[in-house]
Amino acid sequence: MKNEKPLKGWKAKIHEIIYGTHTPAGKLFDILLLVLIMYSILIVMLESVPRFDTDYHEFFNISEWVVTILFSIEYILRIICINRPKKYIFSFFGIIDFLSTVPKYLSFFFMGSQYFTAFRALRLLRVFRILKLVRFVGESNKLANALKASRTKISVFVFFVLIVSVLLGTLMYLIEGPQHGFNSIPHSVYWTIVTLTTVGYGDISPQTPLGQFLATLIMIIGYGIIAVPTGIVSAEYASNMKQNKSMDEGRSCPNCSAEVHRSDADYCRKCGYKLEEDEDDNTEKKA
Amino acid sequence: MKNEKPLKGWKAKIHEIIYGTHTPAGKLFDILLLVLIMYSILIVMLESVPRFDTDYHEFFNISEWVVTILFSIEYILRIICINRPKKYIFSFFGIIDFLSTVPKYLSFFFMGSQYFTAFRALRLLRVFRILKLVRFVGESNKLANALKASRTKISVFVFFVLIVSVLLGTLMYLIEGPQHGFNSIPHSVYWTIVTLTTVGYGDISPQTPLGQFLATLIMIIGYGIIAVPTGIVSAEYASNMKQNKSMDEGRSCPNCSAEVHRSDADYCRKCGYKLEEDEDDNTEKKA
Amino acid sequence: MKNEKPLKGWKAKIHEIIYGTHTPAGKLFDILLLVLIMYSILIVMLESVPRFDTDYHEFFNISEWVVTILFSIEYILRIICINRPKKYIFSFFGIIDFLSTVPKYLSFFFMGSQYFTAFRALRLLRVFRILKLVRFVGESNKLANALKASRTKISVFVFFVLIVSVLLGTLMYLIEGPQHGFNSIPHSVYWTIVTLTTVGYGDISPQTPLGQFLATLIMIIGYGIIAVPTGIVSAEYASNMKQNKSMDEGRSCPNCSAEVHRSDADYCRKCGYKLEEDEDDNTEKKA
Amino acid sequence: MKNEKPLKGWKAKIHEIIYGTHTPAGKLFDILLLVLIMYSILIVMLESVPRFDTDYHEFFNISEWVVTILFSIEYILRIICINRPKKYIFSFFGIIDFLSTVPKYLSFFFMGSQYFTAFRALRLLRVFRILKLVRFVGESNKLANALKASRTKISVFVFFVLIVSVLLGTLMYLIEGPQHGFNSIPHSVYWTIVTLTTVGYGDISPQTPLGQFLATLIMIIGYGIIAVPTGIVSAEYASNMKQNKSMDEGRSCPNCSAEVHRSDADYCRKCGYKLEEDEDDNTEKKA
Repeated sequence: MKNEKPLKGWKAKIHEIIYGTHTPAGKLFDILLLVLIMYSILIVMLESVPRFDTDYHEFFNISEWVVTILFSIEYILRIICINRPKKYIFSFFGIIDFLSTVPKYLSFFFMGSQYFTAFRALRLLRVFRILKLVRFVGESNKLANALKASRTKISVFVFFVLIVSVLLGTLMYLIEGPQHGFNSIPHSVYWTIVTLTTVGYGDISPQTPLGQFLATLIMIIGYGIIAVPTGIVSAEYASNMKQNKSMDEGRSCPNCSAEVHRSDADYCRKCGYKLEEDEDDNTEKKA
Repeated sequence: MKNEKPLKGWKAKIHEIIYGTHTPAGKLFDILLLVLIMYSILIVMLESVPRFDTDYHEFFNISEWVVTILFSIEYILRIICINRPKKYIFSFFGIIDFLSTVPKYLSFFFMGSQYFTAFRALRLLRVFRILKLVRFVGESNKLANALKASRTKISVFVFFVLIVSVLLGTLMYLIEGPQHGFNSIPHSVYWTIVTLTTVGYGDISPQTPLGQFLATLIMIIGYGIIAVPTGIVSAEYASNMKQNKSMDEGRSCPNCSAEVHRSDADYCRKCGYKLEEDEDDNTEKKA
Repeated sequence: MKNEKPLKGWKAKIHEIIYGTHTPAGKLFDILLLVLIMYSILIVMLESVPRFDTDYHEFFNISEWVVTILFSIEYILRIICINRPKKYIFSFFGIIDFLSTVPKYLSFFFMGSQYFTAFRALRLLRVFRILKLVRFVGESNKLANALKASRTKISVFVFFVLIVSVLLGTLMYLIEGPQHGFNSIPHSVYWTIVTLTTVGYGDISPQTPLGQFLATLIMIIGYGIIAVPTGIVSAEYASNMKQNKSMDEGRSCPNCSAEVHRSDADYCRKCGYKLEEDEDDNTEKKA
Repeated sequence: MKNEKPLKGWKAKIHEIIYGTHTPAGKLFDILLLVLIMYSILIVMLESVPRFDTDYHEFFNISEWVVTILFSIEYILRIICINRPKKYIFSFFGIIDFLSTVPKYLSFFFMGSQYFTAFRALRLLRVFRILKLVRFVGESNKLANALKASRTKISVFVFFVLIVSVLLGTLMYLIEGPQHGFNSIPHSVYWTIVTLTTVGYGDISPQTPLGQFLATLIMIIGYGIIAVPTGIVSAEYASNMKQNKSMDEGRSCPNCSAEVHRSDADYCRKCGYKLEEDEDDNTEKKA
């Protein structure tokens, strides 16, 4: 593992800019990328508003092409200046980066009668580009850990909620029936979840006294059990708070691009590649 | 108690497959059963959608018969290969298993003019089959314990919410009256609970300024007291977290089918029957 | 204080039955009273449903008179068999007991043209009788303590929510205006609270893009700050859990009817009257 | 810093009344100010109700002028009787005080055709006067600290919720489309946030089975993750509860008007000005 040769020359420099977050150039790159992503999402969203699309169609189209080409260059650079490109390409963000670039090109090749709808659908996939934003927030790892710790319990809870929903939904279907808007069991289960989660659209609502009584019970059950996931996360988070204090580092491995290393880590925890010391970069080079 | 003879031969083998969860055969059986239950629920749900029912009526009917027969065989095997069948039959899951099998057979005998509605109602009872799913989730016991510990407090709380709902519902009935949709006190109490639990359908909403002012108060009360059950469960769960660490075992008693024994238990905590040591099953048989 | 003579003879016996909860007779009395209260509330509620009222008007009327007379007897007995009647009469439950009895009698004297509406309103006050129910639940004191401890903090929080609601409601009134249903600032503040508390009736909803954007912000704020009261109560409750363990006694003072004395209390904590030892009542009398 | 001369004579007296909260005069001033603010907010709110405005227009106008002049006098006194007026003027409450006084005067100069709408808008800014109320609540500092401590985590969480909303909103737009009320992606994102925060207006609701299925998922996600901010604040609040016990003092610095000094503080923590000992004010002057 450790026999791989470290990156040198311009590749090392670009790696530092693209993957690093501690040098001024790296920070600037990240901020520019952030702005570009935000801009491209805004374009996609505004394009879907009929009023804007008729007026600024050409501007939106050109904007998207510019953004797509810039993202393509970034994607290629990310692959070139890393020791193990495959690891990046098949990582979560590698796939996201790819998916946020490709649709615009595909829309170029598949012109024809189905152009408008298909093209629109493909373009919309590029909203996934937004997931890149997650990368910039270091603090999110703590939250992710707290959620991971209580994942099993919350799954069990959600599963239980689903069972209750199916049973109560079926009961409501029998009580209210299609004549009061409860058209089928799946539709009735949908209503039950709308009620149990306290969303309450009101597109369907019980009309019979018995249905309203059962609905009341469902609400109070929902009110009572909303406490459960909260209690779980609270307890988990409180117990995690003391433990994970030294894990929020912004360094990334120049070899496999794994992120978040402990401040005292000398080697990448994923691939064993020797990590440079972050803050002392300049002093090291001088020495 | 301990004088009862242990199961032998094929009965012991089937018991291991049906009730056990640690051998490969037992695991496979549980997964197959899980899939079958899911499938049968899906069939019942889709059957209630008019569009699907007209197209695939025959397919749904045959599917249900196949599932019902398989469940019947399973139910009979569960009774045969256990030492104390009565304990199983009158246990929670014994009754559920029975209720999820019988309706389809009943629909066979009661044909006639009321066939369609009655049959549909009976069939729907089979959705209770879903409760079997709970059995497969080991983690749910922890949650159940946390809920059991805070049961009394949450009951008191729910009871208090109901009193407040009756009082405020009566007040709203006096303020708004039938001309604004608050037809009667029960209907008005229903609205109060819809509001207090933050569901808010909007099928009834206050029209007078005084009614809207009171509604605002009800919402803020609801917002304030939603914290109470959450706080209770949080505190209970945090204090339970340290205690129940060695209770999540998957073993079941071959005598009375009681589940979740402590890892160091040698005898069933319900009937005193000698439990086999789980993990070392194979080594024991060799010795 | 302690010079007052203790109750003797039949007064002591009735006191034990009405105020006490530990003797079989006292328990029976409480359960009967509970059933009677529930019944009378049910009557008042059903009476407001037009359909039931036309069919069973006479039955409801007689039922109410029976209940009212029984409650009157109970009220008089409560006053007679206590050393300090004034303390009971002006206590919270004394006033509730009075208010739940009087309206029916008043309806008798004020007959005339305004009979129906006024009578109905007066009768409805008797729903306050439900508050008697609280008395029977011992556990509620713990909850009350937890709420009392976090009262100031929750008030501050609710106050802050109100300020935010006034500011955001005014802003929404300026953005949406009367043409989109935001008729006035109070109405707009009402909408803001409906949104902030996640009730969301939908009787008014923003129509302009700017209004919808602000509504989105309000919802996310509401989502974020719903955590605050929950967090407060959780923390308070957890810290209270260890302290108040020996306060849930069901004894009541024969002198001033104050309730919930510590298990080791010999004198009433309110009036200093000597308390009898509860569990050993019979043995004491024999000695 | 400490070379600035302390306030003397009538200025010191007025400072004590306006900024102090411990002397009887200071308390009376604060209560009067509180009542005046409440009154002026009520006037602004009622004025926006068309029915009231036509009947009491003159009364509202005079009331506002009286309140505005009183607030102007208070504002001028606050500037005069402090050592460093600039610090007050550019402080949060200095700006609020200014903004709550000026609009009424501006409405005087800008008369004309646009009088009614512009004037109304300007006047409404005076609702910001309500923010003064916050100053009077000492307890709010604790809450503010708890929120400040969990600010970063809640921001990350809200940010994550926004990303999820954009992704799911886009998906719902593709599934439901403009024909079911999901007119554009921004509109669809608005719906997603309405659903995710469990507000659920019901002005837009999914019509297709696939859309309803996705909506169900969104609700359960919202139900599951509502626990996260609550858990964070709970844990932070519990850990803060032990620390900040001696910070809720009502003293304010006569030099820079900074508030909330520790009970054992001798100098202002912001400007270093010598603080007088609060409770012993009178005894000191006698000595």
